[in-house]
Amino acid sequence: MSHEHHQSSGRLRKAPESFLDPVGVRSVWAEAKEGRRHFIRNAFAAAAAGLAAPVVSAQSNPVPAEGGDPNILNLPAHTTGLGQGVVTDGYGKPSQYEVNVQRRQSPGLTQTTQASVSFAPLQSLFGIVTPSGLHFERHHQGWWDIDPSKHRLMVNGMVKTPMVFTMDEVMRLPAVSRFYFIECGANTAVEWGNVAVPTVQYTHGMISCSEFTGVPLIRLLELAGIDLKKAKFVLAEGADGSSMTRTIPMSLITSGEVLVAYGQNGEMLRPENGYPLRLVVPGVQGVSWVKYLRRIEVGDMPWAAKDEAIHYMDLMPDGTHRQYTNLQECKSVVTTPSGGQVLLDKGFYNITGLAWSGRGKVKRVDVSVDGGRNWRTARLQTPVLSKCLTRFNIDWVWDGKPAIIQSRAQDETGYVQPTYRQLRAVRGTRSIYHNNAIQSWLVQESGEVKNVQLS
Amino acid sequence: MSHEHHQSSGRLRKAPESFLDPVGVRSVWAEAKEGRRHFIRNAFAAAAAGLAAPVVSAQSNPVPAEGGDPNILNLPAHTTGLGQGVVTDGYGKPSQYEVNVQRRQSPGLTQTTQASVSFAPLQSLFGIVTPSGLHFERHHQGWWDIDPSKHRLMVNGMVKTPMVFTMDEVMRLPAVSRFYFIECGANTAVEWGNVAVPTVQYTHGMISCSEFTGVPLIRLLELAGIDLKKAKFVLAEGADGSSMTRTIPMSLITSGEVLVAYGQNGEMLRPENGYPLRLVVPGVQGVSWVKYLRRIEVGDMPWAAKDEAIHYMDLMPDGTHRQYTNLQECKSVVTTPSGGQVLLDKGFYNITGLAWSGRGKVKRVDVSVDGGRNWRTARLQTPVLSKCLTRFNIDWVWDGKPAIIQSRAQDETGYVQPTYRQLRAVRGTRSIYHNNAIQSWLVQESGEVKNVQLS
Repeated sequence: MSHEHHQSSGRLRKAPESFLDPVGVRSVWAEAKEGRRHFIRNAFAAAAAGLAAPVVSAQSNPVPAEGGDPNILNLPAHTTGLGQGVVTDGYGKPSQYEVNVQRRQSPGLTQTTQASVSFAPLQSLFGIVTPSGLHFERHHQGWWDIDPSKHRLMVNGMVKTPMVFTMDEVMRLPAVSRFYFIECGANTAVEWGNVAVPTVQYTHGMISCSEFTGVPLIRLLELAGIDLKKAKFVLAEGADGSSMTRTIPMSLITSGEVLVAYGQNGEMLRPENGYPLRLVVPGVQGVSWVKYLRRIEVGDMPWAAKDEAIHYMDLMPDGTHRQYTNLQECKSVVTTPSGGQVLLDKGFYNITGLAWSGRGKVKRVDVSVDGGRNWRTARLQTPVLSKCLTRFNIDWVWDGKPAIIQSRAQDETGYVQPTYRQLRAVRGTRSIYHNNAIQSWLVQESGEVKNVQLS
Repeated sequence: MSHEHHQSSGRLRKAPESFLDPVGVRSVWAEAKEGRRHFIRNAFAAAAAGLAAPVVSAQSNPVPAEGGDPNILNLPAHTTGLGQGVVTDGYGKPSQYEVNVQRRQSPGLTQTTQASVSFAPLQSLFGIVTPSGLHFERHHQGWWDIDPSKHRLMVNGMVKTPMVFTMDEVMRLPAVSRFYFIECGANTAVEWGNVAVPTVQYTHGMISCSEFTGVPLIRLLELAGIDLKKAKFVLAEGADGSSMTRTIPMSLITSGEVLVAYGQNGEMLRPENGYPLRLVVPGVQGVSWVKYLRRIEVGDMPWAAKDEAIHYMDLMPDGTHRQYTNLQECKSVVTTPSGGQVLLDKGFYNITGLAWSGRGKVKRVDVSVDGGRNWRTARLQTPVLSKCLTRFNIDWVWDGKPAIIQSRAQDETGYVQPTYRQLRAVRGTRSIYHNNAIQSWLVQESGEVKNVQLS
């Protein structure tokens, strides 16, 4: 039996990446119906000494005992040939087989791609680090690749000595590196209206997590001679055409958590994420992590800037607007199984997902497979870090019947992620931002997973 | 004063990436001599309200008070124009200004690039995560991009039921994600002979650190029915043409640390690092992290495989060979300032570097700026994780005189990184592998940093 025969032994994509591509979904589904599921059914017990034996003989005895031509074993080229040399362009790329693991935009979401969003493929990601090449994007007037030798950061306002820093001056200061999540305030926005987009990439893909490196903003303010008795807020301003400005309370800055960051996942920030300098405001919605950061102004009251007075506000049930609600509350989502995926057979699955809180560490994640009637506590991947993604896993044996999978996170403050019913009781139904409700995925008898909302 | 004038305010590359390019080194050096250092000299005090003012007026009042043409302010295009839309190829790349931050090979090191090495640019990296596109490479017969749907992992030998796993079968099992360093046993090899290659990329660049995701190997062995009373070792075998085979002691595996990994930094492994499956053997030299993993054989004694009997052995002073010395002992290196960098002026610098130990956590790193006479304890970046890189930082004010910068790490077992004198007393001078001696960087009066070896 040759390697070719092994290829028919079934394929269950843990995270098929082509969910939004109807052709891809149909082909996976067709495969299941055509009977590949028979090969998966007993995956754990099976494994077949019969299947294994020929491989053993191929490996431990590359020339067959009979002395025949090794080619009759149909060994793959990579076993017999010479591969490629060290990567000559110096910067590596993912496998050609991972080409579907990519950021995706929603064409109808905004009128131009310069004011749009691309979502991270959460269904295909592992652990807590988001590869910088797959980090979600949100642009307000397009992205730029700014020459760092010409970029400047000014600190002014209520300081003794206004200062202008070159990148080199910022980078020679004492730096820290920390893992933090960043979530757009509008993540999961369309679910407010029960729209139920098909996949977790679109429901929750405006979140990413990186190791950021930079200088605590408080250090720069101290160099400029900030008066901490008067100063209550800073304004952060970006250098791109959107002139993004955001108010940050001093209480977040004096803790040392807010960073003027240039590094992300070991290298310089990517252009679409603010190269060469962005503000890192742990726990706070992404819009405040001002990209292409060029100015910090110190003041004593909020600025009510354009993106604080018109956008990024919460419309409450009584018709008032809730302003400056920057903090991202505790939230979680199951990423596998999730909408658009297809379970090719009943049996064991590793349910996995992500949890986070803008208020600190995730304390606990419970998972239900029956729409919230019963809950089991998931395993949290360590280290569990403050204001960082936390990966959770829990075992599940699917009996082939319809199941509704949910996760419910709790943070170290005791706050518990709400159901849609609980969230809407407080927030109404007309919001755009700050939807942290429990997400439900329906596993249908066919194995197809669907986004559903329980009332 | 326009933005153009700001450009002349000096540029100190924290981590100039073009060290091995003599033209680049000369140009940085020429810049320093031409007087740019004058602009840097008082970087912290300076900052100049005079410089700052025009920027303020440009930002807060884009149309000049005089009512003139806004173009006279020479605002950069990114401030006035429309940028690029969301990244349409779905996978992002670093800035065009970071093109020199890349892996580099040493042309003379091996006869073909298929049996060669590329080094990670440690001098340009931050934090502890190595971007997968810059992860060091070591190939024994070139790299391959193997179709994961055709890849199989066999478990055989002293097990009840030999098994063959598809990738899907591996990926549906309970997974864990953990941060680990991987270091080639031959990292810092050329320094044994006092060769003193110019930069940290070449002295220490065969180390990287990632968040790996996979299934603990012990789980697969349990599924196959391993007899833990008899089994003492496993053989790990790769699918590429080099037929890399390595012996791993069961003691490492039963702890649950050894992973059959498919994920690296949130996405699938890169082809040059073993896609779709590699063994992760925390604390152990990279050659045992078998790439393109296709087989695990359980046995009761070491295999003395080709790469254990001919390579990856330590030639001791008495002429004997030390075999199976897999563990990477505690080690550290200062990455900035490091060989090839140029300090453009005296004053404050953030000395930073990396420390690690194959035996657990780094407990402490001391830094000397006078060739080992005096030591100060550096700040360790948290979280400090077991068998993972640990970033350290320490403040330094350079007085402009020659200085020899060193770091000395200690791990949680109490083991202290040796000097070259101490290392050679035990290991002699004819080794290739396992050089963990203290590295010395000489900062010359000119500001140029040079690799030197203290006896």
